Amino acid sequence: MFFSSGIRSGLNIPGNTSNQLGSVVTNVNVNNLPGLNTMGISLARIDYAPYGLNPPHTHPRATEVLVVLEGTLYVGFVLSNPGPNMKNKLFTKILKPGDVFVFPKGMIHFQLNVGKTKAVAMSGLSSQDAGVITVANAVFGSDPPINPYVLTKAFQVEKKVVDYLQSQFWWDNN
Amino acid sequence: MFFSSGIRSGLNIPGNTSNQLGSVVTNVNVNNLPGLNTMGISLARIDYAPYGLNPPHTHPRATEVLVVLEGTLYVGFVLSNPGPNMKNKLFTKILKPGDVFVFPKGMIHFQLNVGKTKAVAMSGLSSQDAGVITVANAVFGSDPPINPYVLTKAFQVEKKVVDYLQSQFWWDNN
Amino acid sequence: MFFSSGIRSGLNIPGNTSNQLGSVVTNVNVNNLPGLNTMGISLARIDYAPYGLNPPHTHPRATEVLVVLEGTLYVGFVLSNPGPNMKNKLFTKILKPGDVFVFPKGMIHFQLNVGKTKAVAMSGLSSQDAGVITVANAVFGSDPPINPYVLTKAFQVEKKVVDYLQSQFWWDNN
Amino acid sequence: MFFSSGIRSGLNIPGNTSNQLGSVVTNVNVNNLPGLNTMGISLARIDYAPYGLNPPHTHPRATEVLVVLEGTLYVGFVLSNPGPNMKNKLFTKILKPGDVFVFPKGMIHFQLNVGKTKAVAMSGLSSQDAGVITVANAVFGSDPPINPYVLTKAFQVEKKVVDYLQSQFWWDNN
Amino acid sequence: MFFSSGIRSGLNIPGNTSNQLGSVVTNVNVNNLPGLNTMGISLARIDYAPYGLNPPHTHPRATEVLVVLEGTLYVGFVLSNPGPNMKNKLFTKILKPGDVFVFPKGMIHFQLNVGKTKAVAMSGLSSQDAGVITVANAVFGSDPPINPYVLTKAFQVEKKVVDYLQSQFWWDNN
Amino acid sequence: MFFSSGIRSGLNIPGNTSNQLGSVVTNVNVNNLPGLNTMGISLARIDYAPYGLNPPHTHPRATEVLVVLEGTLYVGFVLSNPGPNMKNKLFTKILKPGDVFVFPKGMIHFQLNVGKTKAVAMSGLSSQDAGVITVANAVFGSDPPINPYVLTKAFQVEKKVVDYLQSQFWWDNN
Repeated sequence: MFFSSGIRSGLNIPGNTSNQLGSVVTNVNVNNLPGLNTMGISLARIDYAPYGLNPPHTHPRATEVLVVLEGTLYVGFVLSNPGPNMKNKLFTKILKPGDVFVFPKGMIHFQLNVGKTKAVAMSGLSSQDAGVITVANAVFGSDPPINPYVLTKAFQVEKKVVDYLQSQFWWDNN
Repeated sequence: MFFSSGIRSGLNIPGNTSNQLGSVVTNVNVNNLPGLNTMGISLARIDYAPYGLNPPHTHPRATEVLVVLEGTLYVGFVLSNPGPNMKNKLFTKILKPGDVFVFPKGMIHFQLNVGKTKAVAMSGLSSQDAGVITVANAVFGSDPPINPYVLTKAFQVEKKVVDYLQSQFWWDNN
Repeated sequence: MFFSSGIRSGLNIPGNTSNQLGSVVTNVNVNNLPGLNTMGISLARIDYAPYGLNPPHTHPRATEVLVVLEGTLYVGFVLSNPGPNMKNKLFTKILKPGDVFVFPKGMIHFQLNVGKTKAVAMSGLSSQDAGVITVANAVFGSDPPINPYVLTKAFQVEKKVVDYLQSQFWWDNN
Repeated sequence: MFFSSGIRSGLNIPGNTSNQLGSVVTNVNVNNLPGLNTMGISLARIDYAPYGLNPPHTHPRATEVLVVLEGTLYVGFVLSNPGPNMKNKLFTKILKPGDVFVFPKGMIHFQLNVGKTKAVAMSGLSSQDAGVITVANAVFGSDPPINPYVLTKAFQVEKKVVDYLQSQFWWDNN
Repeated sequence: MFFSSGIRSGLNIPGNTSNQLGSVVTNVNVNNLPGLNTMGISLARIDYAPYGLNPPHTHPRATEVLVVLEGTLYVGFVLSNPGPNMKNKLFTKILKPGDVFVFPKGMIHFQLNVGKTKAVAMSGLSSQDAGVITVANAVFGSDPPINPYVLTKAFQVEKKVVDYLQSQFWWDNN
Repeated sequence: MFFSSGIRSGLNIPGNTSNQLGSVVTNVNVNNLPGLNTMGISLARIDYAPYGLNPPHTHPRATEVLVVLEGTLYVGFVLSNPGPNMKNKLFTKILKPGDVFVFPKGMIHFQLNVGKTKAVAMSGLSSQDAGVITVANAVFGSDPPINPYVLTKAFQVEKKVVDYLQSQFWWDNN
């Protein structure tokens, strides 16, 4: 284990945000740093182009602590179902450099660069293998596709909207 | 703790599936059975009208083991993001009475009654407080709503589609 | 792991209760459903003939949540030693269909069908490999047998009672 | 917490073994040493008169590591149910001073002094609150008593044997 | 909990390194961000003046993953005792910006800025309350002081050396 | 696993304390008793010559509960860094036979025999593989040595003191 205690991660280098989301995540976890095995921790750097979005996603096995290093982010997460006739609560905040925010394990969350310049954040995750589930990709871009009947009923839209969504290209910014 | 070791749960009574999803979940967890505190386990009964759907959702703190007691279910779950230029893998199966299926912690999953008669399933969950996040409700029905710019960009749809979705009534079948 | 997410369990089929205890347990755990590995959960169905007994036993690695689906059960569990000159406390309850009861990890517990008809229960267990220790089988039916001197002294009976017990056939209803 | 890091335990003083079992356990755990809270460890000293017995019991929340300091012990534990038509396996060993033995969590185990002189052992337990369930006490000496029908059926004895056992005085050597 | 999901941390602001060590650690943990409670994660920023040292220390409850953002660090950690007649193994590495290194839980480790300019690192820690034990401070600067006889014998030095060390001012850079 | 439930440990035999520290630790852990794997517990016997010292050390993965069997020990542990301008708190106590003391996980601690006769203690540790880091050995006796610049700066001593310390022979009493 100890012979893999270090790597050249590129966490100091701005990631390439030239994609449809305008964001990119650079991860350091057990997959590229074996010394993290059983250690319960990993890191990520997130770069955002102006108005770039890290879209709604979850980490199935980790809580995330994010610190903004540069730029201005609008961040939020949605709590789990609160019970009958109540809506899922959304928490949001505008973060400036040095601000820190916690996204609890498994909650759907997102970050949007609301400034005219690029933004950079660094995150710690409470698992050596946190996992990422981008909601749009998992729901509309799976292989094979989810049966359209399931999605039309779940999202209360006509089938043509689901067809349109399932035909899109879903970028994975991780 | 031990004075609350038991309750009348209604897990033997078919739930009322007269709603837009055609399904209902009856839970026994630490919220109605305090004796489960710290015990790491809870139960749920799920009833499905013909073609009823338990829509895509996650349990942020639990793996689910489901057994079909009656009817025929089409079930599936989507794995987490696999990496660049790869689609999230979908696993599905048709389940008959007595069939058992595992939904790993935090993964988006669903069940659809594909029979002409009602269906019933019983689930064990690996937490006394598993939580449920129905994807459509959390993304399009939160309070306050998620900024539409985030959703149009994340789901690659026009703003009018997001407006339409955010104006819907999102039933919580839990 | 995910290729073994499902099995045909027979949990919908009444088990064969034609044995000296009048009960049988059908388990779905990591031994027949490998997808449960590391998931911390398993399921069991328990069938009881009229006056059938699931005899005093423990699960060394799991708490059990039981729901009655059919029939009437008299259930109980005994707490651990309370201290000098105090007796171990017994908790009991009569359960009807839909009633739920919790048996905390490692406690000796039992269920008796006190109705004239068969009974059925479903249980969730907080381990993928809960284990079962039937007290009578482990104490009087082990291989090799426990030294009779230990048992006569522990149970305060004459050696002929121990000899009689150790010569019995101890059915394992699991 | 740290103000209760130490106590006078009496673990150096031979316990009084003048009882029907000829053994006594002196415990140091979170109940008399609060500094052990959340620490996952406790200690016990066990004294045995000649032919004294620490009768079959379980620790519902701990594995035990026992070292013999003086005398000769016959120790054993029984594994959990192995499956249909197989008997629960018993492991035994004769221990001399300096010998160490492991009793896995939740397994029924016992120690018998097989020497003509007193014996002493020291144990570490993997919980600050391991709990003890003496099988005979919990099964035949509970308050209120377990329904005799349950016990006659479980132990395959006549009711008069159960009546006799339930009328006994069950010493708790812990 | 969720009302304390964010704080202004100052993690973007260079810390004041004008002290005898030439380094300073700025922590974001459960003590200043209550939303981290039970989350198993915290963050720290470390600033180093030229030739500044983060001296040998341990985190009793966390593994640390460090990424260099600026400057050049010489880092190392010492493994636990390897056994008779073997020396504790030291692992070291020169880290440049973007390099990542893992310090396993409880191991003594340090970082030295070996460049002529300031250096900056960001760390994730696998506990919401990792704790820090600076070896020199804990051994020679405790209140009350450790008995000098213990330290002269442990460190194999004359008492005057221990007296000198115990009279020093030990800066805590955390 | 169960075939290695026991070993001849020598925990009953006084260890050889003829070394520069006047103490020796005899361990029973997963390395010599494989049956302890995953069990979260181990034992140790510690022998002290008159004025013998078990020098300042940590267990990176375990809390220790120590009981004195013979002799008189002066024991102590130092808490982690308390914050700016505060010294690390030291807790000490004189222990007589039968006294028990807790050393919390990861804290620097020591025991000194303050009597004119030998002393003996027995410890339980809350891990099957607790690890030991003797501070002096890890800091001044590592292989390769820690860069002297790090140590002179950390310990505020002249380089000749560090050179002297790094040239010593560091006995490992474990």
